[in-house]
Parts: sequence; structure tokens; C-alpha cells
Amino acid sequence: MAVYTEVDDEALIAFLARYDAGELMSAKGIAEGIENTNYLVTTSRANFILTLYERRTKAADLPFFIGLMQHLSRGGIACPVPIADRAGVALGSLLGRHAVLVSFLPGYSVLRPTPEHCAALGAALGALHLAGQSYAGRRENCLSVAGWHALAADVLPRAAELGDGYDSDIAGALERVAAAWPTGLPAGIIHADLFPDNVFFLAGALSGLIDFYFACNDMLAYDLAICLNAWAFETDGAFNITKAQALTRAYHAVRPLGPDELAALPILAQGAALRFLLTRAFDRLHPQTGALARPKDPAEYRRKLRFHAGVRDARAYGL
Amino acid sequence: MAVYTEVDDEALIAFLARYDAGELMSAKGIAEGIENTNYLVTTSRANFILTLYERRTKAADLPFFIGLMQHLSRGGIACPVPIADRAGVALGSLLGRHAVLVSFLPGYSVLRPTPEHCAALGAALGALHLAGQSYAGRRENCLSVAGWHALAADVLPRAAELGDGYDSDIAGALERVAAAWPTGLPAGIIHADLFPDNVFFLAGALSGLIDFYFACNDMLAYDLAICLNAWAFETDGAFNITKAQALTRAYHAVRPLGPDELAALPILAQGAALRFLLTRAFDRLHPQTGALARPKDPAEYRRKLRFHAGVRDARAYGL
Repeated sequence: MAVYTEVDDEALIAFLARYDAGELMSAKGIAEGIENTNYLVTTSRANFILTLYERRTKAADLPFFIGLMQHLSRGGIACPVPIADRAGVALGSLLGRHAVLVSFLPGYSVLRPTPEHCAALGAALGALHLAGQSYAGRRENCLSVAGWHALAADVLPRAAELGDGYDSDIAGALERVAAAWPTGLPAGIIHADLFPDNVFFLAGALSGLIDFYFACNDMLAYDLAICLNAWAFETDGAFNITKAQALTRAYHAVRPLGPDELAALPILAQGAALRFLLTRAFDRLHPQTGALARPKDPAEYRRKLRFHAGVRDARAYGL
Repeated sequence: MAVYTEVDDEALIAFLARYDAGELMSAKGIAEGIENTNYLVTTSRANFILTLYERRTKAADLPFFIGLMQHLSRGGIACPVPIADRAGVALGSLLGRHAVLVSFLPGYSVLRPTPEHCAALGAALGALHLAGQSYAGRRENCLSVAGWHALAADVLPRAAELGDGYDSDIAGALERVAAAWPTGLPAGIIHADLFPDNVFFLAGALSGLIDFYFACNDMLAYDLAICLNAWAFETDGAFNITKAQALTRAYHAVRPLGPDELAALPILAQGAALRFLLTRAFDRLHPQTGALARPKDPAEYRRKLRFHAGVRDARAYGL
């Protein structure tokens, strides 16, 4: 949410000269993304987003992310397209940081998604999963069950600081979800962080997906479960079946869910809620000095976890 | 340097509907300005900058600033133009804050100004002063001599924390400058903060001046003195007579300086250096919690103050 690295005109002009991207006309540091520096760069040719990867992003993962956006874009998914330089290389460097220039996506995220937004998101998620099937890159999901155990080991001793019952809720959910975690479901590339912030709309239609820096290989239906949590609950915590149904049915129409996936959806949704409960709890207990963004409330995801724990089957999600 | 207020799509669309500015296509919070929230807003019509005035900006001053930008723009000065809504009013409100939509200026600030940049700046400053002569708005310069006394009263008791000799340097300069501060020089609207950050260039030519939130009524030559400090010293502290001459002569060609202004220039330059030394010293001694920007180094302006204290006449500045 901040500009960690100031990019001056000389460095930027020298960087742009390596691309066939036009002459610099404007550059504004933007508050987008959490861990990297982003500039909105306007040239005589077009708008671009320039991303400088700060130290928390693993350099070894960058070829996976860049290749993925290029692959998805070629597959018809509206997402930022990394621009190759004149030598054909998209991963560059600027001011001592790895850097990439990507295409600018018009559109804006919506504060309160309607069922129509949810349906558009479901269809786009299905299309993303289909397009990802042919991507050769692989990246493990470090925020799946093993990662949850590691987070829980850190969070549980101090969970009481978050409020009453956090320790038993987290420990109980982790045991329950880990024991029932499915295997063998259809897998592939998942976005893994497709919150409304990361989905752009324009004139009511979905115009693009951004921020692929949690993308990895995992069960496809788990990505749908993450979206159910992020899109089908109201700000007061209430589950909205209309939105859930719009999301899941639109997804199912593009990539039909098998019986095993339908059966697993409630436990996947619990796992997805637990994953964000754990990272929010961790961020709350380890606030970063100097960070402008206030850590998000873990309570929201504890409520969602409880909701899914009471779900019997996929009909609760409109399927 | 931060987005203090998050503007959501619903609020922004409702705000834009009051203007004849096209349909929302994109909005990015940008790291520009120090005390206010700024978004780069793209519509089907054009790019705009949306500014939300946060609490540190005095609401009573806003009509002065907005009227000034409109006046200067009509006078041919390339600066952000506040857009009037359908009712003809430029000062709006958004999410409980005063807000204004201004035109987007292409261009970018330069890290290391050349003499050519300095000459362009000098001519633009002269044109700004001439265009400002017919502006009816008035705003006192609260960072002139009386303001320096107030800042010094706060800073001096703790000046030793900044380093050896800050107390005597500041107290001595304040006494010397206050005693010799000129009166009766040509006055009018000054920008008062025309650092390289606030001047845009495009293909080598000056394309615009921004950030008028220190603008006020004061002696015109004092604004030139501020620019001498901001543009004619190297990062190692060395004074660059070539840049100073390019700046002052280009200014003088647009708005000729009278003999009284030429005679006063060394003391005005000392005053300008003292003004930024004092605010930087204050900011260093009172760091804001949560601020991302590190307070700038007061030592830079102490060196400049010492330089000007040794200047005999305006020939030292190339005039």
C-alpha cells in the first residue's frame, strides 16, 4: 500500500529505453499491492503499471508469476500482461530491484459486490482455471495445511490476545480440517487471493483480474471456496445465499464441479476461512512497524469459519 | 505521500456524476502531496487528479487555492485546473472531506535539474508572478518572519539534539535576517514551495507547476530566493553558479528585478534558507507517528544559510 522505492526520472527513462513502450510522459507512485512498489506510468504509447519487487517477494518465484500472467493473457484471461523488452525478456531490474512493466487494465474494484458481480467473478474464475491447465510452471501453495500448522504454532500461544475462544476455535478447526482435507480433487493453477480488491469491473462487466502473487498449484475447488468467503458474506457477517449461488453456478457452468468436489466444498470453505483467520491473526500479533495499512480483523474470518462448520453439503452454497 | 482516505467506487461514481467529466474507468490512490489524499482518476473523457483535503489543510484557505489555480490557468500558466461541477462550483465534498477534481498535467519532475531546466523554471516563475498580479485572493505568508520566530521558539531549546551549533546558527540567523528583512519590494502571489518535485518537464520543456498549497502573498523576489536554494545547489552542498545564473537571468528576462530587489536578494536567500531550516528542524524534532516519509535533513539548509551569509551582492547569483 505504499511506495517503498522512489523511482526518479533518469532511472525510469533508462529502464523504459529497453522496451518498445514509447516515451515517458508521467509516473505516479500508486497505493496498490501490499508488499511491492507500483507506479502508474504513462508513455506516448499507453499506460503501464511498473512493479518493483521489494525484499519480501521471493525472486525465485518471479518467473512463475510473470510466465503465468503471460500464459493466462494468451489464453484470453483479462489480466496484466508483462511486457517483454527488446531482447524478449519481461523480468527486468531497476534501482537494484527486480522489476516488471505490465499492461494497464482499465476498471475498478467494487466495494459491495452484487449477485451480478458474483456471477461474473464465478465465470472468470472458471475460465482462469481452464486456461491455467496448460501452464507448465509450478508453485507449491505454502499457505495450505502444512503452512497453517506453522502459522498456528506461532499464533496459538498468544491467541488469547485476540479475544476469548480464539485458541480453541483455531486449534479445533485446524485438527478438524487437517483430518478431513481432501486429496485427489482436480488441481491446477489457482489465484488464491481473488478478493474484490483484485477484480476490476467496468460498466458492470468484469474487466480484469490482478495481483497474481499468491497464485500456486492446488485444488481448483479450493479457489472457489476462497471466493465464497470473500464475495458471499455481507459486511455484517451474514451469509448471502443469492450471491453464493450466483458465484458457484456461474463457475459450475464454465467448469463443472464433479461429485467429489461438491462433497468437499464445505470442508474446503472451512479451510479457506481458517487460512485467512490464521494470517490475519498472525498480522495482528506481529504488526509491521511503519506499515500504513491496519491489519485486518481476524474476527470476520472466525465468523465465516463457524458458518461453514455448520454447513452440511454444497446445497448451502447454491449448488 | 499516502492515501489517508480510501475512496470506494460507489462514492467516487456519485461524486463524478456531479461533473461533466465522463464515466469512471479507473482510480488509483497516488503517493503525491504530503498532507492530502490524491487519486489519479481516469474517465471515458480524460485523466484527472482527485484531491481530498485532510484535516491539516485549513478549509478557509481552499477558496484561495482553488481560485488561484483557476486564475493562473486562465492566465496561461500550466497548472492543475480545478474542474467546476454542473452547478459551476469547483470545491466539492467526498466522504466527509472537502474535495476537488483537477485536470491531469503530463510531465514528471527531474531528479537532477540542468541549467536548461533552471532557465525554464526561472521563466515560468516570472510568468507565474505576472499572472498572479491580477488575482484578487489574498493569503498571508504564515511562514515569514513572525512564523520563523514562532518556530524558533519551539526549536531552539532542543536544537542541540540536531547537532553542534544549530542553536547559535539559528538564533544568529534569525536575529540578522529579521533585522535586515526588506519591506516595500514588489509583492504579489508567490508559490513559496517551487522545489523540483513540484515542476514537471516533458521532452526537456517545462510542462507544468503543481502543489499550490503554500501559495500566499509576499515579496516576489523571495520566491526567486526559495528557488535559488532549491535548484542551484548540488546534492553535495556545492552552489552551482551556472544553474543560479540560468534561473535568475531567465526570471529577470520575464519580470525584470528592480535595484532594490537585486540589493535585497542575499538577505532574501538567507531568509528562504532559514525558513526551510526551521521547518525541517521542527519536523525532525516532532516526527509524526505513522508517517512514511522520513523528515528531511536540516543540515542541507544550514549549509545553504551559511553560503548566503557570505554573499555580498546579487552578482553571486549571476545577476
